[in-house]
Amino acid sequence: MQVGFIGLGAMGLPMARNLAEGGFLKAVWNRTQATAETLAQELKITHAREPAELAGAVEAIFMCVSTDKDVLTLLEALLPGLAPGKIIVDFSTVSRETARRAATIVRSEGADFLDSPVSGGVEGARNGTLAMMVGGRGATLAKVQLALKTLASRIVHMGEAGTGQATKAVNQIMAAGINEAVTEALAFGKAQGLDMEKVIDVVSSGAAGNWFLEKRGKTMTQGIFTPGFKISLHHKDLRICRAMAKRLGFPLPITEITLADYQRLLEKGLGDEDISALYRLKRPD
Amino acid sequence: MQVGFIGLGAMGLPMARNLAEGGFLKAVWNRTQATAETLAQELKITHAREPAELAGAVEAIFMCVSTDKDVLTLLEALLPGLAPGKIIVDFSTVSRETARRAATIVRSEGADFLDSPVSGGVEGARNGTLAMMVGGRGATLAKVQLALKTLASRIVHMGEAGTGQATKAVNQIMAAGINEAVTEALAFGKAQGLDMEKVIDVVSSGAAGNWFLEKRGKTMTQGIFTPGFKISLHHKDLRICRAMAKRLGFPLPITEITLADYQRLLEKGLGDEDISALYRLKRPD
Repeated sequence: MQVGFIGLGAMGLPMARNLAEGGFLKAVWNRTQATAETLAQELKITHAREPAELAGAVEAIFMCVSTDKDVLTLLEALLPGLAPGKIIVDFSTVSRETARRAATIVRSEGADFLDSPVSGGVEGARNGTLAMMVGGRGATLAKVQLALKTLASRIVHMGEAGTGQATKAVNQIMAAGINEAVTEALAFGKAQGLDMEKVIDVVSSGAAGNWFLEKRGKTMTQGIFTPGFKISLHHKDLRICRAMAKRLGFPLPITEITLADYQRLLEKGLGDEDISALYRLKRPD
Repeated sequence: MQVGFIGLGAMGLPMARNLAEGGFLKAVWNRTQATAETLAQELKITHAREPAELAGAVEAIFMCVSTDKDVLTLLEALLPGLAPGKIIVDFSTVSRETARRAATIVRSEGADFLDSPVSGGVEGARNGTLAMMVGGRGATLAKVQLALKTLASRIVHMGEAGTGQATKAVNQIMAAGINEAVTEALAFGKAQGLDMEKVIDVVSSGAAGNWFLEKRGKTMTQGIFTPGFKISLHHKDLRICRAMAKRLGFPLPITEITLADYQRLLEKGLGDEDISALYRLKRPD
């Protein structure tokens, strides 16, 4: 299976490296061309001039971009290079509806599409231990499974096209509430004058234990907010969740609080900080 | 080290069993006497007639009760049996102030007191894998450390008397927010028609992974709310946290939402259900 990778951002770049390590990566393309050029030279693979050129040269196109519009625009650009049997796997976080629409467009060319958003942070992308929630045809997933295994320690086929994104929405809503929980609790610990290293150590071992506390607890209490996962991106994801929930008439009260908090951080110009910078709003001045 | 155990509830009973397994348990006492009598017969240990009798017969008194008032009342009853060198270890969740007061009372008898609240749920109590956050003198902790190791896989000395409870407050606040996060996210997943077994499986493996999701996710989406950890007890703990925060002028917005939600569940007569019954309020009707 020869794979091309598009979208060499904070997640995409380490994912492309793991694919290369596994011997799957043949070509790359990136909106900021210099990143693709550097990586292509380093890995001695092709730097495609256009998305369609990349699509023409490989059997599977893996992509990791940001917004719903990015995904649909990129699909347009890929179409001339698509052919029956080719597979597009999209790791971006977008709406369930966009994923369904993408699958319809790609299938009309005889090719196939999987929505395959991931979770596990930059650490998971780097270590190839992402969790992957896949929507689309099982037979298509089976064809790219070996390549995906270089990226993820858990790959779950959720169902038809769009169910990967529907699951990612659950993940992002949970992550939002956990951010509220961890930042509120740790800021209270600090206000009480506790030794926060010890607090994080012992709380991680009990019933409040969670990934975010373990990975971001110590840095946030030290005032370090290097991403990680940018506020602006989680804010974007939560707006997608809000729209999806609205269609179902489903209320998301905690997510709405996080959206409002992120909005405050964005207005302070902190959108490029890690989401743990929510801690800034919780600590007393 | 000969230990007596007081308070054979959902947490205390399995903890007493693990102490017995380790060869430390000599006597028990319980408000509901039948529970103590049954356990004493089974383990062939002493069923003390009064707390003071138990205190007189052992070197260390371990206790696990519910409220601040329970702790202070029990201390009163223990006092006649105390003597220099004896050690009381309290696993209950109460306020930092109560822990400090208890330490002062016990120390005035030449004995010593550790506040040592735990986290890890009934599973942790059963398996001896609790997380233990200890306040009080390090030298006193050293004397009971071996006995505590039969109960906990992580024992952290937080500092002076009361810091164990201050840390537990951080834990309970975090657990509250995580409950809000997990129930909101899973109810949304269900509303989307997803296969919730798969959702819980894949989300647990990513950046939203947490203890509560792993241990209570599947049961809550099946409508099973057997404790675990009773709503009425977490509600009690969060009221303690609220009072502690108020003294510091520290706002706890997410905790306040959980308190209000638990209040609604209590009014429905559901206080004896597991805290994951918060899911009831999140799912659409």
